[in-house]
Amino acid sequence: MENKKHVAIQNDYADDYAWCYGCGRLNESGLHFKTLWQDEQTVTYYEPRAEHTAIPGFVYGGLLASLIDCHGTGSASLALHRKNGHEPGDGIEPPRFVTASLHVDFLRPTPLNTTLKAVGTLEEVHPKRWRVHIEVFAEDIQCAKGVVEAVVMPDNFKA
Amino acid sequence: MENKKHVAIQNDYADDYAWCYGCGRLNESGLHFKTLWQDEQTVTYYEPRAEHTAIPGFVYGGLLASLIDCHGTGSASLALHRKNGHEPGDGIEPPRFVTASLHVDFLRPTPLNTTLKAVGTLEEVHPKRWRVHIEVFAEDIQCAKGVVEAVVMPDNFKA
Repeated sequence: MENKKHVAIQNDYADDYAWCYGCGRLNESGLHFKTLWQDEQTVTYYEPRAEHTAIPGFVYGGLLASLIDCHGTGSASLALHRKNGHEPGDGIEPPRFVTASLHVDFLRPTPLNTTLKAVGTLEEVHPKRWRVHIEVFAEDIQCAKGVVEAVVMPDNFKA
Repeated sequence: MENKKHVAIQNDYADDYAWCYGCGRLNESGLHFKTLWQDEQTVTYYEPRAEHTAIPGFVYGGLLASLIDCHGTGSASLALHRKNGHEPGDGIEPPRFVTASLHVDFLRPTPLNTTLKAVGTLEEVHPKRWRVHIEVFAEDIQCAKGVVEAVVMPDNFKA
């Protein structure tokens, strides 16, 4: 059981829902964010690529927004999955969330050439709607904070 | 004069500030967003790449956040440049803005395989701080809306 907490939720998304450029394991061009439990919070680590530049030396805002966005939906999926009695890696398909809204405050320039850490704190609005409060750190210095409102994927995303 | 309004502000950023993954003309891997005046509003067009998938068939949120982010800073640059008496293409380096905060509401799934249009409406908070209200359309259907607070690049972005 303890080990399962260290499996990323994105590993368990159904194949049809595993193509996201940010966090889909099947998107070969994508960023492959992986979201895990860390005690009662959630965490995603990511090392930006050299081309993820804003002003030279710093990470562009869109990458941070993407990280916060996918960390939010992944965290909500972890939370509802646990509420339903499951952990990543136990063979049960987790709920797939999408983003209703995203807010990011850019607190200071975020350096390139470091591993970023997004930490999420969960707030249940409704079992199918979670608010995730997210802090992004580079070398333990907080560079951004965000809030994601994530909802269980509605039917209009289905082809 | 009229023709100059159809030059993108990003074409005039100083070389040192033209590397953004979202909108830098010198970033070979980047998205190359281009922001222009359209009457008193601003516009950026972008056709997502096939890999910019969320759920198959739809655009991932991070791409929309990036588009809104760079459209916001580009719009603020256009606005302050005009306030200073200049238009893109007149040979004067425009002010370079960065993002203080970004908010996105995802209104409906955004289809891939279409050209997206971001339209910005400017609100001056201070000459060095502009709030840009942005609507994103796919095939004339609004899919997202956002607000960017853009500020003139502070000294801590300088190497």
